[in-house]
Amino acid sequence: MPRFFVGGEQIRGDSVLLEAADLNHLKVLRLRPEETFTVCDGAGTDHSCRLDGEIARILETRPSAGEPSVRVALYAAYAKSDRVDHIVQKGVELGAAEVVLFPSARCVSRPGDPGKKLERWQRIALEAAKQSGRGVVPRIRAAKTFKGALEEASGAELPLFLYECARRLSLRAALLAHGEAETVSVMTGPEGGFDPDEAARAEQMGLKSVTIGPRILRCETAPLAALTAILFHYQNLE
Amino acid sequence: MPRFFVGGEQIRGDSVLLEAADLNHLKVLRLRPEETFTVCDGAGTDHSCRLDGEIARILETRPSAGEPSVRVALYAAYAKSDRVDHIVQKGVELGAAEVVLFPSARCVSRPGDPGKKLERWQRIALEAAKQSGRGVVPRIRAAKTFKGALEEASGAELPLFLYECARRLSLRAALLAHGEAETVSVMTGPEGGFDPDEAARAEQMGLKSVTIGPRILRCETAPLAALTAILFHYQNLE
Repeated sequence: MPRFFVGGEQIRGDSVLLEAADLNHLKVLRLRPEETFTVCDGAGTDHSCRLDGEIARILETRPSAGEPSVRVALYAAYAKSDRVDHIVQKGVELGAAEVVLFPSARCVSRPGDPGKKLERWQRIALEAAKQSGRGVVPRIRAAKTFKGALEEASGAELPLFLYECARRLSLRAALLAHGEAETVSVMTGPEGGFDPDEAARAEQMGLKSVTIGPRILRCETAPLAALTAILFHYQNLE
Repeated sequence: MPRFFVGGEQIRGDSVLLEAADLNHLKVLRLRPEETFTVCDGAGTDHSCRLDGEIARILETRPSAGEPSVRVALYAAYAKSDRVDHIVQKGVELGAAEVVLFPSARCVSRPGDPGKKLERWQRIALEAAKQSGRGVVPRIRAAKTFKGALEEASGAELPLFLYECARRLSLRAALLAHGEAETVSVMTGPEGGFDPDEAARAEQMGLKSVTIGPRILRCETAPLAALTAILFHYQNLE
């Protein structure tokens, strides 16, 4: 079913004032008069609607089915742009709560002005949220420094730091040891991985360095594998 | 550490006769005389080697660390070529035992001659196996028909069929109900998903239709999410 995100101010009583782009999209789809589509307020509520002229009439309202019960924030080091595209698109599909990009010692590419890139990544996130049936559009943002990213990530109930040299603690063991959590953060490195000093700083800030196994994952694969495992563990892939 | 796959016949006593391409690659890397590299026999054994002229001398032999204990075969319906590239590359990285492509009712693209495509996908698999540290190079092959794919997939101890309309059984519940397994197969559909008739035939063949949650995953994301969850469940991501 076609899906659109609107701002709360576009919803008035049982009517939704659609933006021109969404209205055009609906016209292109040539829905039959009885066909419905979904309008999501981006805050976890879905409205099943039918088109009435240029207004969407709300037939039924229910909580969005697509939101995980655990908020997993992905903190990914800047990588080549198409790799970040990939992390954003798949991360949103799979159920990430937000994606935060940050600079790291071994980053091979880092945008001079992240603003333009963030706009692009936010558009990718919107499309992925529509396609996968999310109830919110996850925010894509940038932390200015590694330290800033560490500080923010450490605010989660279970802050994790994916480090390939962390052979002592597995992601699984960290999840089992922690028990229930409402918020999890996962930091992952750039193409060349984190340097040991960064790992030490992360541990000082209270993040848990974890491994997700002996296979060396690319920088765009690791955050998605960790996200999938965390959502699976917390029964959010069922 | 650089990693090369060789055929068993290239290994004689403590020496490995490298192929010209690998030898060239080693020269380009300009290893210092004391630096070592890994030669893998593609059958689960790693040899740590040093270059001696044009011969690799074996210093140490050990089992490859990169092989999961559970063999997960991904059966993926043909999709647009770059999506299959993606499934192959990430599937091998994450730990798939093999990837089998098959035709399905709603496939929008299906190669006329799969041979050329298979060569390409096998090369992608080799590169991913080198990069991620696998102990084997997973085979990428094609099943001629949907029925043939079903028959092969049903040979696994735990044969799974990922179907978005399968709301009754989750992947997690199927894994818990089955207990330990040495071989698992997962079939996933094309861009438009499986049709209900295909799902019925899969169930008749003994495959278990499972869901991995309410978010609609793209055809290249679903097999990788399922693979990750299965490997995590069987403690192969630690």
